[in-house]
Amino acid sequence: MAVKVIGAAFYTSTQRVLAAIYEKGVEYRLEPLDIMGGAHKKPDHLALHPFGQIPVIQDQDLTLFETRAIIRYIAEKHKGQGTPLFGKNLKEKAIVEQWLAVEVEEFNGPISTAIFQLVFGPVSWGIPTDESLVSDALQKLGKVLDAYEKRLSDCKYLAGDFFSLADLAHLPYLHQLINVAKRGEMVKSRKHVYAWWEDISCRPAWKNVLELA
Amino acid sequence: MAVKVIGAAFYTSTQRVLAAIYEKGVEYRLEPLDIMGGAHKKPDHLALHPFGQIPVIQDQDLTLFETRAIIRYIAEKHKGQGTPLFGKNLKEKAIVEQWLAVEVEEFNGPISTAIFQLVFGPVSWGIPTDESLVSDALQKLGKVLDAYEKRLSDCKYLAGDFFSLADLAHLPYLHQLINVAKRGEMVKSRKHVYAWWEDISCRPAWKNVLELA
Ligand SMILES: N[C@@H](CCC(=O)N[C@@H](CS)C(=O)NCC(=O)O)C(=O)O
Ligand SMILES: N[C@@H](CCC(=O)N[C@@H](CS)C(=O)NCC(=O)O)C(=O)O
Repeated sequence: MAVKVIGAAFYTSTQRVLAAIYEKGVEYRLEPLDIMGGAHKKPDHLALHPFGQIPVIQDQDLTLFETRAIIRYIAEKHKGQGTPLFGKNLKEKAIVEQWLAVEVEEFNGPISTAIFQLVFGPVSWGIPTDESLVSDALQKLGKVLDAYEKRLSDCKYLAGDFFSLADLAHLPYLHQLINVAKRGEMVKSRKHVYAWWEDISCRPAWKNVLELA
Repeated sequence: MAVKVIGAAFYTSTQRVLAAIYEKGVEYRLEPLDIMGGAHKKPDHLALHPFGQIPVIQDQDLTLFETRAIIRYIAEKHKGQGTPLFGKNLKEKAIVEQWLAVEVEEFNGPISTAIFQLVFGPVSWGIPTDESLVSDALQKLGKVLDAYEKRLSDCKYLAGDFFSLADLAHLPYLHQLINVAKRGEMVKSRKHVYAWWEDISCRPAWKNVLELA
C-alpha cells in the first residue's frame, strides 16, 4: 500500500520527506493540505499533528510527523532497496547521525530564518523582509558553512564518501537560498561546499521532488 | 574497552550522554575538559569537534560529537543489554524518533535559553539574568508542555508505554529548570507532565548521573 503524505510539495518540510521517498523508490500518494486556507490548524489535522504543521505521513496503521523522524523511518524500513541512506554499518550510521544533528541544531535555525524573511514571509504572507534579521542569520550560517567547507575538503559527503540522509536533509533550504532567494554567494564562494551542492542537487530523486513544486 | 567521554559532568549535554551510558550499563571513562579555562576552543579539542563544544566520545576508532547522535549510537550498539531505548520494533522506533525530533526542535530552544539566563549565564559567566528573555522562553515552553500534557494523558511515556531515548533526552534541562533554577511550576501544574517527570527522574541511571555533578 502506498504511503500517504499529507503536505504541500512546494514546502521545504514536505520536500525533505519526498526526497527520501524518491531515493528509496517508495510508492506514495500526496494528499495536499491547504495551508494558505489554514487547514493545518483545524481539528482534523491537529488530531494528527499536535503542533499543526506539515507534513504527516500515514503508512498502514502508523501516523508519523516530524520530517527528520519520517526520513529515518523510510530509510530504515526500506533499507534493502534504493539508495542506502545510513551508510553500511553502525559506525557509518553514527557519523550520519552526527551530521543530521548538526543539520537540525546548527544549520536549520539560521537558514530557515533567512528563507522565511526572503521567501515565505514576503511571497506567501505579504510580510516584508527584515534585512537585519537576514544578515544576522546569514552570518551565523556562514560559520556553519565554514565547518562544512573543512569537512568536505576531507570527504565527498558530510558523513564520508557516501551520500546519506545527512546530505539529503540539507537539500530543501539550500535550494531556496540558491535558486529561489538567489542568495547563493555564500555557497558558491566555498569551493568544497559548492562542489557538494552541485553533486547532491543533481540527484534524480531531488529533481523529481522539484518537478512537483 | 571503556568508552571515553570528553566532557564535564555538570553540563546538560554531557549528562544526556551519561544517562544513556548508565541505562545501557556501558563501561566508560570521563575525561574532564576545562570549559571555564577555554580548553574546548583550543586546537586539540577543535580537531575533535568543529564547533568547539562538549561532549565528544571516543569508542575504539570512532570519534563522535553531538549528544543526540551519541545517545542513538549507544542505544543501537548495545541494543542487547540494559534498557531498550528505541522500543521493540520499527514502528515504536519511528515514534521514539518523532518525539526526539520534538525534543530538539520544539523543547530544546526555549528551555536552553531559559536555563542559560537563569543558571549558566549568572552562575558560570557572571552575566545577569534578562527576565524578559526568560518569560518569553517560558511562554514558548508552556505551549510545548501543553502538547506533552495531552500526549502523556494517553500514554505513560512520550513514545508510548515504554521509557525511551525520547524521554531520556529531556532529563538534563528539566532537572535544571525544576531543581536548580526552581522554576518548576510549569511542570508541576501539568498533572501528566509532572507524573512523567517524577517517574523518569527517579530512574537509577539518572540518579547515577546526578551523583557525578
Ligand atoms: N519540525 C517540523 C517542522 C515542520 C514545519 O515547520 N512545517 C511548516 C511548513 S514547511 C508548517 O507546517 N508551517 C505551519 C506552522 O508551523 O504553523 C518538521 O520537520 O516536520
Ligand atoms: N548540539 C550539541 C550542543 C553541545 C553544547 O552546547 N555543549 C555546551 C556545554 S552544555 C558547550 O560545549 N558549550 C560551549 C560552546 O558552545 O562554546 C550537542 O548536543 O552535543
